[in-house]
Parts: sequence; C-alpha cells; structure tokens
Amino acid sequence: MVKSTEDATSTASLHKEISHLRHELKTSTHDHPATSHQIRVGNYLLERLAQLGVTTLFGVPGDFNLGFLDLVEDDPKIHWAGNCNELNAAYAADGFARVKESGVGALVTTFGVGELSAINGIAGAFSEHVPVVHIVGVPNTLQLKTKPMLHHTLGDGRFDAYLKAAEQFTRSQAILTRKENADVEIDRVLTDCILSGKPVYITLPTDVAYEKISAARLRTPLNREPPENDPETEASVIESIYKLVKAVNGNVAVLIDACTIRHHIKEELKEFLDKTQFPVYAAPMGKTAIDEGHPRYGGVYVGSISHPDILEKVEGAKLTISIGSMLSDFNTGNFTYHIPRSKTVELHSDHSRVLHALFPGIGFKRLLPKLTAKLAEFRSISHKISVPRFVFPVPSESNDIISQAWLWPRVGQFFRPRDVIIAETGTSSFGIIDVPLPKEATLITQVLWGSIGYTVGALLGAACAARDCHLGRTILFIGDGSLQVTVQELSTLITNNVTPIIFVLNNSGYTIERFIRGMHRKYNDIASWEYTQLLNTFTKDKDATISYTVKTKAELDALLNDDTFNRAEKVQLVELIMLAEDAPAALSRQTELGGKTNKYGEPEVDLKRMSSKL
Amino acid sequence: MVKSTEDATSTASLHKEISHLRHELKTSTHDHPATSHQIRVGNYLLERLAQLGVTTLFGVPGDFNLGFLDLVEDDPKIHWAGNCNELNAAYAADGFARVKESGVGALVTTFGVGELSAINGIAGAFSEHVPVVHIVGVPNTLQLKTKPMLHHTLGDGRFDAYLKAAEQFTRSQAILTRKENADVEIDRVLTDCILSGKPVYITLPTDVAYEKISAARLRTPLNREPPENDPETEASVIESIYKLVKAVNGNVAVLIDACTIRHHIKEELKEFLDKTQFPVYAAPMGKTAIDEGHPRYGGVYVGSISHPDILEKVEGAKLTISIGSMLSDFNTGNFTYHIPRSKTVELHSDHSRVLHALFPGIGFKRLLPKLTAKLAEFRSISHKISVPRFVFPVPSESNDIISQAWLWPRVGQFFRPRDVIIAETGTSSFGIIDVPLPKEATLITQVLWGSIGYTVGALLGAACAARDCHLGRTILFIGDGSLQVTVQELSTLITNNVTPIIFVLNNSGYTIERFIRGMHRKYNDIASWEYTQLLNTFTKDKDATISYTVKTKAELDALLNDDTFNRAEKVQLVELIMLAEDAPAALSRQTELGGKTNKYGEPEVDLKRMSSKL
Repeated sequence: MVKSTEDATSTASLHKEISHLRHELKTSTHDHPATSHQIRVGNYLLERLAQLGVTTLFGVPGDFNLGFLDLVEDDPKIHWAGNCNELNAAYAADGFARVKESGVGALVTTFGVGELSAINGIAGAFSEHVPVVHIVGVPNTLQLKTKPMLHHTLGDGRFDAYLKAAEQFTRSQAILTRKENADVEIDRVLTDCILSGKPVYITLPTDVAYEKISAARLRTPLNREPPENDPETEASVIESIYKLVKAVNGNVAVLIDACTIRHHIKEELKEFLDKTQFPVYAAPMGKTAIDEGHPRYGGVYVGSISHPDILEKVEGAKLTISIGSMLSDFNTGNFTYHIPRSKTVELHSDHSRVLHALFPGIGFKRLLPKLTAKLAEFRSISHKISVPRFVFPVPSESNDIISQAWLWPRVGQFFRPRDVIIAETGTSSFGIIDVPLPKEATLITQVLWGSIGYTVGALLGAACAARDCHLGRTILFIGDGSLQVTVQELSTLITNNVTPIIFVLNNSGYTIERFIRGMHRKYNDIASWEYTQLLNTFTKDKDATISYTVKTKAELDALLNDDTFNRAEKVQLVELIMLAEDAPAALSRQTELGGKTNKYGEPEVDLKRMSSKL
Repeated sequence: MVKSTEDATSTASLHKEISHLRHELKTSTHDHPATSHQIRVGNYLLERLAQLGVTTLFGVPGDFNLGFLDLVEDDPKIHWAGNCNELNAAYAADGFARVKESGVGALVTTFGVGELSAINGIAGAFSEHVPVVHIVGVPNTLQLKTKPMLHHTLGDGRFDAYLKAAEQFTRSQAILTRKENADVEIDRVLTDCILSGKPVYITLPTDVAYEKISAARLRTPLNREPPENDPETEASVIESIYKLVKAVNGNVAVLIDACTIRHHIKEELKEFLDKTQFPVYAAPMGKTAIDEGHPRYGGVYVGSISHPDILEKVEGAKLTISIGSMLSDFNTGNFTYHIPRSKTVELHSDHSRVLHALFPGIGFKRLLPKLTAKLAEFRSISHKISVPRFVFPVPSESNDIISQAWLWPRVGQFFRPRDVIIAETGTSSFGIIDVPLPKEATLITQVLWGSIGYTVGALLGAACAARDCHLGRTILFIGDGSLQVTVQELSTLITNNVTPIIFVLNNSGYTIERFIRGMHRKYNDIASWEYTQLLNTFTKDKDATISYTVKTKAELDALLNDDTFNRAEKVQLVELIMLAEDAPAALSRQTELGGKTNKYGEPEVDLKRMSSKL
C-alpha cells in the first residue's frame, strides 16, 4: 500500500477544529428577528431557503448574480460553496437535497451560460424526484424589456430561450419581474418544489434582487404537507386492498422503491411493516427505505436478474403491494418483472392503483397509516411467511486481484450505521445492489437518470448535508471514466472542509459501456491519470488530503481496518487497481438483457407490456 | 523559472513522430470508391462530415451511440477524440470549426444526459455563428414509439423534451426515424449548418444508424454557396452606396466585425480594401478578418473606450461602411458607438442596410466583389486619408511583477505568422484586443457568449484543425478561474497528440467579476491549485508535457526567447503569477460602463437606442 502524502499533523486537526467551529457558529445563528420590517427580495428568498434546510448554497458567480451573491455572502445562516462549474453545482444541490430529508437543495447560476451548463443536473433531479431550487441571476428589468445584445445572449433578442429550455426540466418557474408579487411567486414555486419533490426555476433580475418588500409572509412557514386524500375514495381503496389481502389469506409481498425515500414515508413504511409483518423486498432504487437488517426484509428484487430465492418469494406471493415504484430498465432487470397487474396493488405519492383500478389523488403519505391499522390483523399469519436472509458473504478467491465479486461484500463489512454511501452509475451502482447496508445508512445512486460524473458533485452536497445532520462518514465509489467527467469538484470538498472517502475504481475506462457494447473498442478506453496526485494538485494544503493506491485484496483489507483511515479526518482518495473486463454479476446480467433492446431494434419481449404501464 | 518536468527525451520525439505519421496516414487515406453501392446511414453521415472537413470527431461514448461509434472507430478518414465530458466536446467542435474555415465541427453525445451536458456549448456556437453538428445517439425506433422508462429518460414518457430544448439553440434539426429519408434529412441540416454558420441537431436511433441506404447522393457535394442576390435589388444597393461615397468625396471608414470571419469573406474583404484603399478598423470580434499589418488598417474600434486617435478617425469619417457587425456590449464598449445610422452602410451575410433602408436577402459574399469594382475609382482620394499606426509598445515598468499592461504587448512580440491564438473570456479576451497580431494569425475569443472555460475545449479542437491546415502554434491565454471550469480536457490534448502552449494567468480568482462587482468578495476567490502539476497528473507519459511557473518579467522574457519553448514540441503549460486586482485597461473601462446598466437598473444612456437597432 503506497501512501502518497504523509499522515495528519497536529496543524491539520487544528484547521479541522477551527472550520468545524466556524460551521457550528453559522448553523447555530438565531433567526433574523425582524420578519415584520422591510427586506430585500434576495434576502426574502434566502430566508425561505434557510427555512427549508439550506445551509450551503451551491453555484458559480456570474455577472448577473453578483449582486445577489453579496447578500448570500453576508447571510449569517447560509454558506456559499463556490463550485468549479455549474453542472457540478447542480449535482451538489441534488446530493444535498437527498441527504437533507424533507429539505431542498439550491444553486445559483448566471443567465444563459451558467444555467445551461447546469441543465443536465436539473433534468436529473427532475427524473429522480429530487427537490432542487435553481436560482438564475438575469439582467435587470429594463434590459429584459429592451433586449440589447448583452454578452450571454443568443444575439437575436430571444431572451426567453433559456426559460423555454428550463420549462422542460422543472416543475414550475418563477420569472420575477417586479417586487409586488416576488414573495408570492417565490413561495409558490418553493411549495411546488417541496410537495412535488421536483426541481423549480427562479429568475432573479439584478435590480429586483435589491427591491425592498415586506418580510411579513416569512412568519408563516411554507406548507410541506401533501393534500388530504378524498375520504370516501381513500376508504374504498383501503377496503378493496383489505379484501384482496383477506382473499389471499395474508400471502403478500411488499415491494418498496425509490419514491418511498424521495417522498419521505420511511416512518410510515416502518410502522406498516412492523404492524403487518408482511415480507418486504426493495428495488435497487428502494434500498435503505427500510433498515436492511429489518427481520422482515428479504433483500433486493430486480426482476429476472434477482437472486433465485428472492425471485421465487416475490413472484410467488399471491398479492404484491408495491410502494413508490419507479419502474425503469436498470431498476427492474430491464423490465423483467413477472408480476401481473391482476395481483398488484400500487401506492404512489399522488395516486393509487388496486389491480386495474386507478385512484388519482390518493397519495401514500396519508393512506399508509390508515392502511396499517386496517391490515394489522394479518400480522399473525404473515409473520409466519419466511423471508430469505439478506447476506452477502465475502468469497474466498485464489488470487490477489481486487475483483468486483470480492470488493462489494468486503466494503459491506466496512460500512457503519449512519454512513452516507454514494455509488456512481456503472460497476459501482450495480455492485452496491447486493450489499446489505447498515442501520440508518443513506444510499445515493442515480439509477434512472444515470449521468456519469454525477456523484462527484453529489458527494460534495451530500457531505455538507451529512455534516448538518450529524450523520456518519460520506463514502463514494466511482469509476475512473466517471471521475474524469467532473473531477475538478474534488477541489471544492477541500475548500468546504468536508472529509469524505473516495474509492476510485481504476479499471481503465468505461467498463459499463464495455459490457453494453464494444468490450475491446478504443472509444471505451480513457487517458491513464495519476489519480493519487489529484487531491494534492487541487490544493496547496498538503495536510488536508491523503491518497492511496491499492493493488491487492490484502492491501485493501489493511486499509479498511486502519483506525486513522476509518476516522476519516481528511479527504481520502483510494485508487483501486481493477480489471477492465470485470463487472458485478448484476451488471453483466443487466447488460445482457439490455443488449437485446438497445442495439439493432429487435423488440425485447416485455418492452411493450412495460411501456404500456407507464 | 522552475521547470517541473525534465526536457524532451529521444523517446518523446519518437512518440511524436509515430503519432504524426499515424495522423498523416488517416488524413491522406483516399475516398471510399464505392459511393454507388449500399451504405449504412451512420457511414453516410460520416462520409458527409468528412466532405465538410471533419477529420476529428469529438464527444463521449454513451449506450445509445456505441453502435455508431463502432462505425466512427472503423472509419479511415475520421479520428475519435474521446473527450472527458460533453460540454468540453461541444467547445472542441466549436474551436475546430473556427479554425477550419468553411468547414464544420462535429460532436457525438448520448440521449438526454450527454446532449444536455453539451447544450451550453451548442448555444454558444449559435450565439457566435459557428457551424457545429451535434449528433445524438438515441434509443431504437421501437423504443422511441413505446417510450419505456429507459435510463436517461425523465421518467414521465416525454421523449421529446430534449428536442424541445435543442430547438432553442440550433438552426435546424433532423430527427431520423427511418432509412427512407435519412440521406435527404442529413443533407438538409448539414446544408443549413454551412450556409447559416449555426449549429444543427441530428438524432440517430441505434437501429437507424445501421440501416442500409444508397450511397448515390454522396457523389454530389453539398451546396456551400450562399444564394444569389436579387440582381435588381443588389444593383440598387450598389448604386446608392456609390452615391453616398461620392457625396462624401470618399471620406469613408470601413468597420469590420465578427461575421466577416464567420461567413468567410476574408478574401473578398482584402480585395475590397486593396482596391478602394479605404481606411479600415476592426471591432474586437473582427480582429484578424484583415491582416493587422495591412497598410490601411488602423486598429480596433470599441466605441467610447477606443484609443482617442482611433475614436476620432472612425467617428470623424463622413460615412461608415460596417461589414459583418455583431453589436454586443463587450464588442462595442457597452453600446457606446457614436455613429448615427444616417451615416452608416451595413453589409451582413444575409441582408444589407443603406442608412435607414433595409435590403433583406442581399448578402455580402456576392455583393462585395461588385461593390469593390464600383468603388475602386475612389482609391486615389481615399488612399490619402491617413490611418493611425496600429502598434502596442512594451511599457518599461520599474518593478518585476508581470502586469497586464506589460504582458500583452510582450506576448505580441512572441506571436508568429499563422499562429492560432485563443483568449479566454476575462482579462485575456480584453488584453488581446490592443495586440497587433501577425499575418495570417487566427484569433479565437467568445466575446458575445462569454462562457468561461470555453477555451480549454476550444483549444483542443483548434489545435486538431490547425494540424490539418498546417498552421502555426496553438496558444491559449486563460485565467485560473476559467481553467478550473473545464480543466480535465487538458488530458485530451495529450491523448490527441497536439502540442499547444497554455498560459495560465494565476490571479487568484475571477478577476473579470471583481471588476464587474465584488472586488474583495470571497465569492470571487477560488481554490489555490498546483497548476504546474496538472499536466503530469493527467498523463503517465512524463515526456509528453512540461510545465513552468513564471513570477517575473525577466523569467517570462527568458522563456519566450527560449528555442525549445518556441518549437512547441510537447504540451507546455506556463503559470503566470499575477495580481488579483490588475486588469487590462480595456476591461476596467468596459466594466465601468457596464456597471451602470448591470446592477441596479438605472438605464444606461445608449441602451434603448442600441436595443431598438437589434
């Protein structure tokens, strides 16, 4: 094991202590008392963001947002992260929001050049139901009217082109043009953001940011509760589910997915499972919705690529109660669920479905507690249904190579309760599927959107939020190809004084693509970097970081057992030397199925059926 | 002067020789003979791109473009660059197109995640009139119909959302869905791309890329000539301009701008000036449209921030013939031209204007030669009009610090004929304005769009194109803040065997923003990197690169006079230590004017007038 920088010195820990205290000071500052007096529109927005849990604001300065950034820098509650670029800032806001449950993430960019650089990150938040507030500094209201050929414009006077693009990827938009309705408009889109769990877009002209308005509305917190379900419809849904469960004599499998996490029903879900004792399985995107050590938890169901025992249990159950499902290709073993609608109950954030009957507007947040009470009587039967134990033993292999088959169960032993674990799209997001995660762990993956490079930015946001929430370590697994996409944001980890652990799977290129197509193609190769030099290139503070290259199982074992490493008191990067053509079993099975549909257009059997469901 | 890696070894030069030969081989390969037989749609597209001068294709692999990338990798004429991310790929395609005059640049991305990451680069090409072809690999035609919840989708079945965004920033779009019209559609948008000088968008489904079609159309090259002007209207335009010139007895100033370069009329322009002997001045975006050593060239006019002599000459002339103008804030001294329309003739790529009269469809490419013939008779008068000599002497300063005032004239002496010079938005793009550039030099700046980080990608594309066109060295000037935005693409320079010179102006943050607002604000500070470690972190080939830190004028003098450095046989990075609050005069004057309009909404005097002109 090669340490490429020396150990922590006392100076380093002092620095850390100072930055920790600085941060505590910021987050502990009391509310502005004067919510009755006049306040700038920019400050109003910041105050609302603070109420929604924003302590770190991400983004990049640009000439049309600098006035607003003065207000940010002077705000006692909100810290400016200062990203290297806007895409990474959007990813960071997304990662922040995922860890700050029932909070939002936010970023600030500038007109045109800045906001468009962030748009892929915003679209990802839309796709994966993450509440991100995108604030764009735009020219002043006179310029917005006269439309001169300002820099950052298209040169043809179309000042609305960026909005038209943003509309495709945000739930709602507030185009602020006058102080009179600024507070109402801000509150409207922020409420949309929380309730929908989707990104929203706010344009803030340079002059409007400084207009004075009444702060009165700030005294009323924004509504964060979903609307009531219609009582009659809700009752009939509960009744019909009850009848179905009774008809199958409690032979039920519960399947949980992404939206249980995104729409914050973990508590309602736990109560439901504790009281009913139904067996429960998670889709890949539903991991950690329920403690993976829960006695009734049987592991991960991914359609036909599931472990045989799990497949049998889930597809063998007489009735499936699916909660918060997001049936994407990578989340369903390429649409290979074999669970007919005729034996499926679906509960979603804003609608329910009982077999073939749709019930719009019946959301699970309010339905679930009542359903729990109603179905509790089946407990005595259902708790007898056996569930497979969800374990992932470390295989003994005859060689020293760090294989995918060995790595994932091994790091599973390294995780601790309350760790925040982030797995980049690729071998990491597939490798983590079968790893039982500890109690109260948070898992961040981007299984639906799958934008490589996402997790470097998300790591920054997640680490900042984890610090607020006093969670455990923040740990990233990322391939070399993905890291190169967004690598500069490692630098922002250091300037924000967070100390995550970064495992770089150096397997010489885009291994997930190799398994999809072009195993030996040059286009799947990438430049060979000195990964252990990255951190000390991105800072002059040699005590702030440490990097390792690990080539063998023994070396990795030693590092994972090292106390200093486990304490994670500085940014640590671990380069894992792995084979280009090695992938977790889940990935090779997935791409085998996907290959049928992706390449030359032969329809994949279940494709039509699945798509008709969507 | 600190050299952080050792000198070139023989191995290095051997590597260079090999890569050079490889490249020659690629570019020298003869055309496919068989344009009569059947060909795959993907190969048809590649063949057309090759006809338009594409030798390097930029982009990032993604699961929906891998099939097409097989065809790219197997193509004898086109080399795959393999970028680190899509934004940088778009910038590279833009830089490539700017150097490859009357050619196009092209990039390949994947559905959603890839194309959206590139969109800011595409919008920049639209804004600045650069012909870029954006090819997006999309799901197969069955999936496009059934719209399953594939990864890289928004999860709500809206498969057209990305197109709706792309429509805002591209001239035209070809949504390929069947082989029957694929060739016609490809030819349509490629022709739009060349003639408009704006980006276009092509979606290529995985199955359509492999469909076989006739190659017959390939025998007919695409039309690259603008449409004929209506003879009668054209004649009347020429006549009325003639009368105006006669009325002022040849007291004319010609003002040239960006579109003379973008729409390829450099030759017609030179002929016009040689024959008429009119004095000529360039806007910042018009630099190098005419050889800056031309006897009738008087330098750069930037409205009220121009050199007093130039201001007097331009605004004092009785008639202004403005050719290819792009009147953006940073290109006009924040709209401070004092040239009334009542004494202005405007010639554009697709219309003309004589005083207040507009002539749609009368483009300069065909008008100019006729106008030259008509106005040649004024030569004897106009050549007597004196023009200021365009010089920029190196000031003698009492200290050793590398100041902006000293740097720009000094590097002016370093430039050679046919060098390709790239100046990043910020102190570099303003600093280069007053530097007389050598004969046949190419200058790349992004004065209108102004997206920081652009030039790192553009550098890659420009260097690849410069190699094709046997131009001189490719030289970049970029600030530390901008470099951090897109830094990873330095790695792709090395893998593509180009050897540019990169000057990093390390002035501790966003100096252009400091001058716009927040001189001492923390949000304008950035992380302090080890810039001279970047190149050897991004490659394991220590002979491929060399980096320097330069702290004094004397050190920079020595380096600029060093033969090995001047030969530019490897990637060279020069970190220039400069002051955070030092800016070229043009920038401080510009931001002073801009400040009036940007911040709190007081209307800037000329704003309404200028905007009404657009």
